[in-house]
Amino acid sequence: MKIAVYGMGRFGSFWAKTLSEYHDVYGYNRTSGKEIPEGVFPATYDQMLSCDVIVLCVAISAFKDVVKHLAPHLASGTLVMDTCSVKTYPASVMLEYLPHDIHCIATHPMFGPDSAKHGVQGLPFVYCPLRCPTDTATFWKQQFLAMKMNVLEMDCDRHDKQAAYSQGVTHFVGRVLDELHLQETELATLGYKNLMTIVEQTCNDPLQLFYDLQRFNPYAHRMHEQLKQALEAVVSALDRQDAAGWKIT
Amino acid sequence: MKIAVYGMGRFGSFWAKTLSEYHDVYGYNRTSGKEIPEGVFPATYDQMLSCDVIVLCVAISAFKDVVKHLAPHLASGTLVMDTCSVKTYPASVMLEYLPHDIHCIATHPMFGPDSAKHGVQGLPFVYCPLRCPTDTATFWKQQFLAMKMNVLEMDCDRHDKQAAYSQGVTHFVGRVLDELHLQETELATLGYKNLMTIVEQTCNDPLQLFYDLQRFNPYAHRMHEQLKQALEAVVSALDRQDAAGWKIT
Repeated sequence: MKIAVYGMGRFGSFWAKTLSEYHDVYGYNRTSGKEIPEGVFPATYDQMLSCDVIVLCVAISAFKDVVKHLAPHLASGTLVMDTCSVKTYPASVMLEYLPHDIHCIATHPMFGPDSAKHGVQGLPFVYCPLRCPTDTATFWKQQFLAMKMNVLEMDCDRHDKQAAYSQGVTHFVGRVLDELHLQETELATLGYKNLMTIVEQTCNDPLQLFYDLQRFNPYAHRMHEQLKQALEAVVSALDRQDAAGWKIT
Repeated sequence: MKIAVYGMGRFGSFWAKTLSEYHDVYGYNRTSGKEIPEGVFPATYDQMLSCDVIVLCVAISAFKDVVKHLAPHLASGTLVMDTCSVKTYPASVMLEYLPHDIHCIATHPMFGPDSAKHGVQGLPFVYCPLRCPTDTATFWKQQFLAMKMNVLEMDCDRHDKQAAYSQGVTHFVGRVLDELHLQETELATLGYKNLMTIVEQTCNDPLQLFYDLQRFNPYAHRMHEQLKQALEAVVSALDRQDAAGWKIT
C-alpha cells in the first residue's frame, strides 16, 4: 500500500510525516524545492500518480484546479482523500470532476503542527466516505482509529455548520485581535494570556488557510454577521448603562 | 492591625479570605445575609469603621457613593485601599472625597476566585500609593510581597491604558462571544477549547464588573472602536478575496 501526499506545505508536510509512522508515504509538491520530512520518500509526478492512495493537502482555493488536472491521469481504483478545513465544497468538486472509477473519501484532521506537537492521540478527525466500496471505507476508518485519533464520521454539511461556529470563529477572532497588535504586558491576566495564545496559534497558520476557511464554508458568512451583531449588542448595552446615568462624573 | 473588607460579593469574599491568612480580617456588607468566609470575622458598620485599614471591594459604579458616605465617619489616620479593576477613577474619587488625614492606596489584584484557585503566588498585583506616609506605603508593599504576588508599582493612568488592551479586551471578547451562544462540539479544536474557557471565565464574573471595567476605563471606548474597525478590516479583506475571483463556483 503506497500513499502519496500531494502538497508539502506546512500542513501537508506534517500530515505526511504523521502518516509515515504507519504507511509508506511519498511526498509530492507542484513546485520544487520544498523540503520533504524525514521518513517520507520524495516523489515525482508520475510516482505520485502510481500510488494507491493520493491525499490532497493543497489550499482550498487551489483544490478544484488540482482535482481537474489530476482527474484524467489517475489509474482506475485509485483512492483520493482530501484534508480541507471545509467539507461540502471539496466533496462536491471530487464527486463532479473525478471519474466514477476513482474512489473518494473526505477527511478533516482538526489539528495541525502546533496543536498536535505532542501527537494526534485523541484529537478530532472528521471522516466522510463519499464514493468507495464499503470495505475501503471500513479499512481506512480502522487505520485512522489505529492512530488513536477521535474519528468522527459525519456528513459534510454537518461538519461545515459545526466547524464555522468552532474552528471558524476561533480563527476569525484570532485574526481580528491580530489587527489590534496587542502587546505583552506585565498586567497580563490568565484570561489575556489564553487570548494571546489563540492569536499566536491562529496567525502561525498561512493567511490563505484563514481566507479559505472563512470563504469556502457556506456557514461562515452568517457567523461573521452574527459576530458583528454581537459586538454591536455589547456596545449598545454599554451605551444604555451610560444613558442610565452611570457615566463617570 | 485590624483590616476590614467592605463588600462581601464574589471578589470581596475571596479577597477577605486570602488576606485572612496573613492578618485579622473583618468582613462587612451593606446588606445583611451575605455569607462571611471561614477565617473572616463578621463586622457591624461600627466595627468596620474602627479598623486600621478599610479595603473597599464594591462595584466601581457604586464606589463614589460608598466613599462619600464613609468619609465623615472615618477616624484620622485610617488607611483606605480600593481594589477596583480600573484605577484613575477610584483614585480621583478617594483623593477628592476622603479628608486629608485619611490615607489612600489604590490597588488592583489582577485575579479572582477562578484564576487564583491555586493561590495568588506570582499573580500580578498593581500597587499605587496615592496619599500616605512613605513608611505606610513601604509597609504594605512588603505585606503584599510576602504574599508572593507579583507586586507592580505603577501610576493609575498607565494601569488603565495597559489594562484596557489586556484584561479589558479579554472581557469584551468573552461577552461578545457569549452573545453567540457557542456550543460544545465534538469538533472542538484546541484553540476553540481555549476560546470557550475565556467565555466561561469572563461570564463567571458579575455582569456589573464587565460594564464597570469597560465604562470607567478611559481607554476602553477607544479599544471598542478599534476592535470594531479590526473586525471590519478582516471582513473587507475577505470581500476583496471574493472580488478577486476566488468565489465558490
